[in-house]
Order: sequence, then structure tokens, then C-alpha cells
Amino acid sequence: MIPIGERINGMFTDVKKAIAAKDPAAIHQLSEDQTKAGAKYLDINVGTAASDQVDAMKWLVNTIQEKCDTPLALDSQKLDVVKAGLEEVKGHCMINSCQADPEKLDIYLPLCKEYNAALVALCMDKDGVSQDTAKRLENAMTIVEKASEYGVPSDHLYIDPIILPINVDQRQPQMIFEAVSQIRMMADPAPHITVGLSNISQSTRERHLINRTMLVMLAAHGCDSAIVDVLDNDLMDAWITADLLMDKMIYSDSYLKAALA
Amino acid sequence: MIPIGERINGMFTDVKKAIAAKDPAAIHQLSEDQTKAGAKYLDINVGTAASDQVDAMKWLVNTIQEKCDTPLALDSQKLDVVKAGLEEVKGHCMINSCQADPEKLDIYLPLCKEYNAALVALCMDKDGVSQDTAKRLENAMTIVEKASEYGVPSDHLYIDPIILPINVDQRQPQMIFEAVSQIRMMADPAPHITVGLSNISQSTRERHLINRTMLVMLAAHGCDSAIVDVLDNDLMDAWITADLLMDKMIYSDSYLKAALA
Repeated sequence: MIPIGERINGMFTDVKKAIAAKDPAAIHQLSEDQTKAGAKYLDINVGTAASDQVDAMKWLVNTIQEKCDTPLALDSQKLDVVKAGLEEVKGHCMINSCQADPEKLDIYLPLCKEYNAALVALCMDKDGVSQDTAKRLENAMTIVEKASEYGVPSDHLYIDPIILPINVDQRQPQMIFEAVSQIRMMADPAPHITVGLSNISQSTRERHLINRTMLVMLAAHGCDSAIVDVLDNDLMDAWITADLLMDKMIYSDSYLKAALA
Repeated sequence: MIPIGERINGMFTDVKKAIAAKDPAAIHQLSEDQTKAGAKYLDINVGTAASDQVDAMKWLVNTIQEKCDTPLALDSQKLDVVKAGLEEVKGHCMINSCQADPEKLDIYLPLCKEYNAALVALCMDKDGVSQDTAKRLENAMTIVEKASEYGVPSDHLYIDPIILPINVDQRQPQMIFEAVSQIRMMADPAPHITVGLSNISQSTRERHLINRTMLVMLAAHGCDSAIVDVLDNDLMDAWITADLLMDKMIYSDSYLKAALA
């Protein structure tokens, strides 16, 4: 399992304040806490409130790297913000995200190649998120083919089938499970699958329960990554247990601790 | 979801004592509690300790039916014990269980037909539980074909792919998920799938977590029934949420309560 910690995001008040004041303390703490909790990447999103998003991204990258070497996921829809992050990053990182339009992939995939970065690629294009599985799979195939064309290995590809809130369309989860199974077969080795998990529970009352149930169901179909609140212990315990049941780690009585060691 | 409450089983000390003393209080309480918690069937197993299993089965059936009309699942490997239960049962019930050997199905399926009973049929035969998916599917096909031959509707068929403990063979869960998906396609309407859930966590330290994670993963592949501890609230909440995500109930903020109403 490849958890991407979602917490360093300018939409959270503490992060927004830290960015505005260029106060590293909260950022260092979140980096450390999420890493200890099992994050394999730390997502960083400056939020829409930052007055200068390029400057904010650079500051976040450098601030985190002062104390922490967990790979970063540069989360922005703006290319100049992503590029600013890439220039500051030491070592491997992830770009989050790019849509499946060929003309966008033609920009992002060469960047991945240049920086040895992983890419979160969304199963949506300029026409938006499709209501059916076939269109999502068509998008995924475009991503896989383009990545192959540019020599970006499938191990650096994190395809996101796009989760919509359960109270918006209840047919979506089953379509996503089907898409996940199919996408995993599109290349060998299989591309990773990642999701913005918290979307599923938007505006519901049982957010934690719905999030972790969805994550376990996704894992049962081969999804191996997700952008999540890694500080949610119940969520991480459920995910580790799903990994155990998918034979991705060896059983021991203390498998929960072993997974985070 | 069709939860089968596992609690009225002579292997539990309180039930064993109640059977020995023919004391109805504990049995009435367990019937009521499990029904309130969402059990659609109450499994009853006299246990191996009962001095006269036929007599104990009759007493349990009649005792429960004094106060509760939740359908019963007559759980015994002994045909005379099952038959004794069938003679006492009012209304619909379930027989739990029969192996997939044709000569056994030739006995149990006519009984189901005669009593309008559902049948838990195991994906194992006289050679035992197979290590591979193909053999389990072969057993399932024998069950489905025999049921069709005897005119037992697939809605009365609960096929059990047989769960083994995770610390015995970690490859099993994925084989079972595959088997569940395949078995659901063997008839239209699909046969139910049920499992003895607690087996997965035998001799492990995190029994509740492993049980509910396995159940959610099974549900993600179309398993719609399980013999479980319905009094485990976290398990039931997870199962209800999995049903919600499989579009089997309509979302409302209070969907957890609505599911048990």
C-alpha cells in the first residue's frame, strides 16, 4: 500500500496560516506525524488562498525538506506551480495531477521523465468526469499508451479513476471497482491505482466509516494507493489488514505494528 | 445483506448450560438481541456436548419460536438432527449445511423442496477443501446444477466458498474473492454467497478487525450473506456501509439506523 498523506493542504486552516506567516513549525510537525503514520508520499497543496502560489510551493517544499525526506506529491492544477516545486525537490517526487487529454500528457510526461517523478493521472479529460466505466477505461488507456511512448515506467504511473461523493451517485463505486480491476491489467507491471478517498464521503455524516469501507473495497479490487488522512488510525489499520488479506504482507500477531515499522 | 446470527451455538458456555438445564431465558435473550441487531436468520447449533442432539435441537427450535419469528438456520452435520429441527420449525428456515457431493445433495435438496427451506451448500466434497479456485467452482457448479434438477430456486441457495484462517494460508482470500465473483454468475438470479466469517481470524490477535475487513472485501465481490456475530456493532456498521457502496440501499444521513429499522 502506498498512502499519500493529504494533510499539508492550504484548505486546512493551520496550513493556510503557516503558509501566510512562513512559519515552519506546523509544517514540520505534519511532515513528521504523517511519515510516522505510514505516508509514503506527502501531498503538498498551497491552496487557493496563497497570494503567490509559486512562492508558497517553493517555501513548502524547502521547509519540509529541511527536516524530512519522505517523497513529496506536488499537488496543483497549475503547471508553473508544479514546475516551481520540481525545481526545489531533492530526490524522487510525484506530480499530482494531470488529466488524460493527450495534449496535457504531452507536457506532464516529459516532465516526469526529466525529474524521474511519478505522475497521478486522472481518468477524466476536457469533457469532464464520465458517468460510465468505458470512458474512464478509454482515458486510462490513453494515459498508459502515452506513458509508454515517453518511456515513463508503469511503476511511476498512478491512475486515478475519480471518486464522486456517494450521495451524488450511488452507482459510481461499483463502476470504479470494475475500472480498477481493468486498469490493473493494462500494463505489466500494472500501473498503480490511486484515489482521492475523502471525496466518497463529502457531506455525509459517517465520513470516517464510509472512507475506510470504500478503501477496503478498493483494495479488494487491486487499488494500491490513495490520498488519505494517514493520521486516521482506524483507516490505516483497516488498510493494513486489507493488504494482509490480499497477501501483500506476511501474517504475524503484530502485523499492524510490523506494517509501520 | 443477509446476516446469519452465530450466537446460539452449544460451543458457547452460556448456550451449552441453557441447553443442559433446558433454561429458556438465555436463548430468548440471544434470539431477541440478534434479531434487533439485524440477523435475518438465527443459526442454531446444539454443539457436540449435548447428550441427546436430536432432543436438544427440538428444544432449541421450540424455545426460540415461543418468542421470536426470525427464521432459523438448523446447523448440524447430522441428518437426523436437521430432520428433527425441520419437523418442529414453523415457516421458512435454512439448513446449514450440506457438502457438494452429489449423493449428499440428493438427500438435502429434496428436503429443502419439501420444507421450502434454504440450503447452505459448501464448496467442499468428500476429498475435503481444495487449495485451488477451479475445484471450488466445480463444487459450486455441482450444487447449482443439482438444485436446478430438484427445482430448488437459486434464491434458496447459499453457496459457501469455505474460508480458512489467514494464518494458515494467505493466498486463500484472493481465491475466495475470485470464486465469489464467478459463483454469482452461475445462475440468474444469482445464488447467494455465505461464509463462516469468523474462520478467517482463528488464532489471530486482531479478530474483530480481520473479520470486518474480510467481510467488506467479500461484499465488494458480491458476497451477500455471512454467518457472523451480529452483536459486533462495528462489524455490522461496516457491512451496512459496504451495502450502501454497492448501491443496495439508498443513502440518507442516518443510513446506519435505517438499515436496521
